[in-house]
Amino acid sequence: MSNFALMEQEFSSTLLENAVNSLSRLPGVGRKTALRFALHLLRRPEDEAAGIGEAIINLRKGIRYCSMCHNISEQEICPICSSSQRQRNVLCVVENVKDVMSVENTRQYFGLYHVLGGLISPVDGIGPDCLEIASLAERVAAGGIDEVILATGATVEADTTNFYIYRLLSRVSPDLKITQLARGVSVGDELEYTDEITLGRSISGRTPFSLG
Amino acid sequence: MSNFALMEQEFSSTLLENAVNSLSRLPGVGRKTALRFALHLLRRPEDEAAGIGEAIINLRKGIRYCSMCHNISEQEICPICSSSQRQRNVLCVVENVKDVMSVENTRQYFGLYHVLGGLISPVDGIGPDCLEIASLAERVAAGGIDEVILATGATVEADTTNFYIYRLLSRVSPDLKITQLARGVSVGDELEYTDEITLGRSISGRTPFSLG
Repeated sequence: MSNFALMEQEFSSTLLENAVNSLSRLPGVGRKTALRFALHLLRRPEDEAAGIGEAIINLRKGIRYCSMCHNISEQEICPICSSSQRQRNVLCVVENVKDVMSVENTRQYFGLYHVLGGLISPVDGIGPDCLEIASLAERVAAGGIDEVILATGATVEADTTNFYIYRLLSRVSPDLKITQLARGVSVGDELEYTDEITLGRSISGRTPFSLG
Repeated sequence: MSNFALMEQEFSSTLLENAVNSLSRLPGVGRKTALRFALHLLRRPEDEAAGIGEAIINLRKGIRYCSMCHNISEQEICPICSSSQRQRNVLCVVENVKDVMSVENTRQYFGLYHVLGGLISPVDGIGPDCLEIASLAERVAAGGIDEVILATGATVEADTTNFYIYRLLSRVSPDLKITQLARGVSVGDELEYTDEITLGRSISGRTPFSLG
C-alpha cells in the first residue's frame, strides 16, 4: 500500500525522480531504498556524491576481461594468468568473478582459473554457447593442463553445467583429471542440523583421519 | 571472518575496487553488497550503468531547495508553495523531504510545508541553529499563518524540537494555533499488541465516534 503510494507520487524534482529510478535498478534495491540512497547523497558533500557517480561510470566503461581466464582485469592478461608463481597445469573452473575472489581468499589454491560467466540454465535460456565453455575446451586442447577442478556450487544448474563440461573435456583430452569440490559437513556445523544428502555424501566421501 | 577476508583481499582491478569503495558509502551498504552492485553493473549494458552514474552526479549538482519551505525543488519556489490550490494559512512542519512526500501521499493535507532539515539532537551536535527554525519563525512573524502543525515522529528528539519550536512561536505570535499529530492506535493494529504509552495517549485523546 505505502509502496503503491510511493510509486504513484509525483516527486517535487525530476532530478530526484531520475536518481530514484536509476538507483532502483541495482539488485535488491526497491524504490524506497533508492529514495533513501538519493536523500543520503543530497546530505553529503558534492564531491563525494560525484565520486560515487564517476566510479560507476568508469567501472563500466573501463573494465576489461582477461583474454585467458575471463576474470576482471586491467590488462589483456590478468595478474593471475601472467604470474610465474602459479601452477600452470591446474585449472579451477568457476561460475563468476566473485567465485575467483572466494577461492583466492582460502589461500589454498595456487593454479589458474577459468571463469564461465554463468551456469547452464535452460529455464533462463542460458545454453553452453552463452558461456565460456568453448574457450575452456580450447585451453585444454592446447595442452599443458593436467587437472580441471569444477569449483561450482551444489545446485541443479551447477550439476548440469559440470556434467556438460565433464563430457566435453573427456572427449577433448581423455587423460585429463577432472575433479570437483568435496561435498560434506560445513566446518563449525553440528551433525544434527546437517541435511541428509550432505551427510550422506560426507560419509561416502569420507577421508583418512587427520589432526587439523 | 569472510567479511574480514573480503576487506583484506586485493581486487583484480582498481576500477572495481574504486566502485566497491564508493558504493559502500551508501547507507546500509557494506562491502559485500557494494561488490554485488558492482558485479551487477558489469553485467548490464554500458548505457544503463552510465545512466545510474550520471543520475547521481546530476542529482547532487543540480538540486535546489525551495527558498520558502526548503523542500527539494527545481525552481526558486517549489510547486506546493507557488500553488493557488493550497491553503496558505496552514504550515505543516516536518523533519525532512521524505516526510513531505509521506504527508502528500495521505491526500489529507492541503496547506503549505516547512522542512526543518533535521531534529534538535545535542548528542549529535545538532542545535536549533543547524535547522530551518529561524526561517520558520520569520515566516510566522510575516503574518498570514493561522495554524502550525508539528508533524514529527514520536521520538525524544522530535519532542525536544517540538517543545523548542512551540516556545519560540508562542512568543513570536501569541494567537497562533499550534497543533501536533494525533498519537494513537495504528489502523489495523490489535489492542493486545499496542504499547501502554500509545494506548494511554489514545484514551486521553479519544475522539467522538464516527463511521469510517
